[in-house]
Amino acid sequence: MRIAVDVMGGDHGPATVIDGVALALATSPKLSAVYLVGCREQITARLRSTGCKDARIQIVHASDVLTMEDKPVEALRKKKDSSILRAVDLVKSGNADAVVSCGNTGGLVAAATIRLRPLPGVDRPAIATVIPGPESEFVLLDSGASVECRPLHFLHFAIMGHVYARELLNKPHPRVAILSNGTESNKGNSLTQEASRLCRQADINFTGYVEGHGLFHNQVDVVVCDGFVGNIVLKTIESFANGLVGWLKTELAKNPKRMLGAMLARNALRTIRKRMDPEACGGASLLGLNGHVTKAHGSARERAIMNAIRFTAEAVRHQLQKAVQTEIARTNMKIAGDVGSSHAA
Amino acid sequence: MRIAVDVMGGDHGPATVIDGVALALATSPKLSAVYLVGCREQITARLRSTGCKDARIQIVHASDVLTMEDKPVEALRKKKDSSILRAVDLVKSGNADAVVSCGNTGGLVAAATIRLRPLPGVDRPAIATVIPGPESEFVLLDSGASVECRPLHFLHFAIMGHVYARELLNKPHPRVAILSNGTESNKGNSLTQEASRLCRQADINFTGYVEGHGLFHNQVDVVVCDGFVGNIVLKTIESFANGLVGWLKTELAKNPKRMLGAMLARNALRTIRKRMDPEACGGASLLGLNGHVTKAHGSARERAIMNAIRFTAEAVRHQLQKAVQTEIARTNMKIAGDVGSSHAA
Repeated sequence: MRIAVDVMGGDHGPATVIDGVALALATSPKLSAVYLVGCREQITARLRSTGCKDARIQIVHASDVLTMEDKPVEALRKKKDSSILRAVDLVKSGNADAVVSCGNTGGLVAAATIRLRPLPGVDRPAIATVIPGPESEFVLLDSGASVECRPLHFLHFAIMGHVYARELLNKPHPRVAILSNGTESNKGNSLTQEASRLCRQADINFTGYVEGHGLFHNQVDVVVCDGFVGNIVLKTIESFANGLVGWLKTELAKNPKRMLGAMLARNALRTIRKRMDPEACGGASLLGLNGHVTKAHGSARERAIMNAIRFTAEAVRHQLQKAVQTEIARTNMKIAGDVGSSHAA
Repeated sequence: MRIAVDVMGGDHGPATVIDGVALALATSPKLSAVYLVGCREQITARLRSTGCKDARIQIVHASDVLTMEDKPVEALRKKKDSSILRAVDLVKSGNADAVVSCGNTGGLVAAATIRLRPLPGVDRPAIATVIPGPESEFVLLDSGASVECRPLHFLHFAIMGHVYARELLNKPHPRVAILSNGTESNKGNSLTQEASRLCRQADINFTGYVEGHGLFHNQVDVVVCDGFVGNIVLKTIESFANGLVGWLKTELAKNPKRMLGAMLARNALRTIRKRMDPEACGGASLLGLNGHVTKAHGSARERAIMNAIRFTAEAVRHQLQKAVQTEIARTNMKIAGDVGSSHAA
């Protein structure tokens, strides 16, 4: 297992990413190589200062960085030697099995789509993000790669989510639903209506629409939407959770009685926090491309980087993209067959 | 102040709504009349059993009810004598100043739009829902009335939200933003891009895009989106908050130490719960029509109904719809003028 890591572009700088890689190497004997892609000088300095001498590390120099402020496509055209492109190219050339980056999301999606190209039969990639809930988790896709979608893209996202939940979430018959403004079949917009019709024809456990009320009550395993809606939903949840945690801390610190109460109840709060912890998984998958791509959170710290690498190795082991390709080919053929036979009728 | 209340169609039946009205009457001397619209037999029975003899109550019989399962437009055509239509008609005829209902949202929107008609210059109504946060609240619109929108509708929602926040949230210069998948101006979809261009021309404090991350950090007072996205966001927040509260309760009840801690810290939890309490406001406004319409939550209990009525009286006192009409006329003229002068240039 060989993984290329773009060490630039994260909120906490390359040192944090490099230390995360060292953690992953220390705990994952099956990793045979990790490419650290970025400024050679900064990388060697960090490895020297932490005393990391793992022989599986290889440095690939890149002189440019795509910043969070860069407009992806434009910046990629100008910054030919950016770490994100160099890292993706290692997968394209077959030197690495997967790439991990905590840089600019739009940049990673653009670089990966341009260089690796979508899988045969797939038009648009999707970012699959796992969102934990009290009883169960669900995978939300697309959470930001493809902002404007057509019904066929939704069908493909549904298949990708089905494969993802089956392979990585240990759910043999995942419940797949389209996110909408109500569960009744007359709800939704023209896009979700037509997408529902397509999804009903696929060999997946498609349960129709799920509304916002159903997300955290274990009603669904895969939630399908376009990247505009998915990104808003994902960030709204994160914002609300963070706001609530901060607020709770402020309220609990207001007097000694509350502080004592918080101390006694801290394990309850810890259990919830641990399960909601975005660092526990560490990364979202970019699905539908010829190669494995993991987007780690921009604010990822060492542990999150380690988990993103371990999660990526797991996705590679399950040959996630190959499984997606097989299922999409089968679905496309079935839909085309259905269209053919209904034309003949 | 005369308010028509559709007592049918709520999750807890007419008795709860009628008791809520009695609470509102007891605490609001300025209410001169409340019409209880629904099954006369059930209404008189409840008033008799609770001993409510307020002379300001008038009963208006309606033999049909729009249920939560009904498809709005279709059901309104069949159920001519539904309580929702009768209640809206009291506003249309000038007998009431406003209507309150906790029934089927789609039914209320359809009935109100068909009978009251949009304000001059307005194409689509919007549901404005106030969402509380740790530091401040914001108004989200449209949260479910208009599922498919054009850029001009977004502009009108922005104006409606501006007026709402100014009049009812005590914010003289509300910050208005369009909900998007990022704050940079190149983000969003074709709808939000064009809508942004229009909003920049209006005389409001338009701040551009807000993303999900910005919602609960006091960055914005008015959040504009279409009814599809708004409904999903609103329900996702409710679902997440409920899921979290239930989860916290389960964890806190797991052992005596945690239970003691919860007891000592209970005021902290109460403060948060009180502020997040959906019953505190009790209703969302349907803006952009010739008449005041409040949608109370389907699950509203007595206190929520009381608050919805008091809130509605406040909206009428501020002549909310008239203020919306004035601002929209002014904006439409300005936009048309800008288009005219740019054509001349």
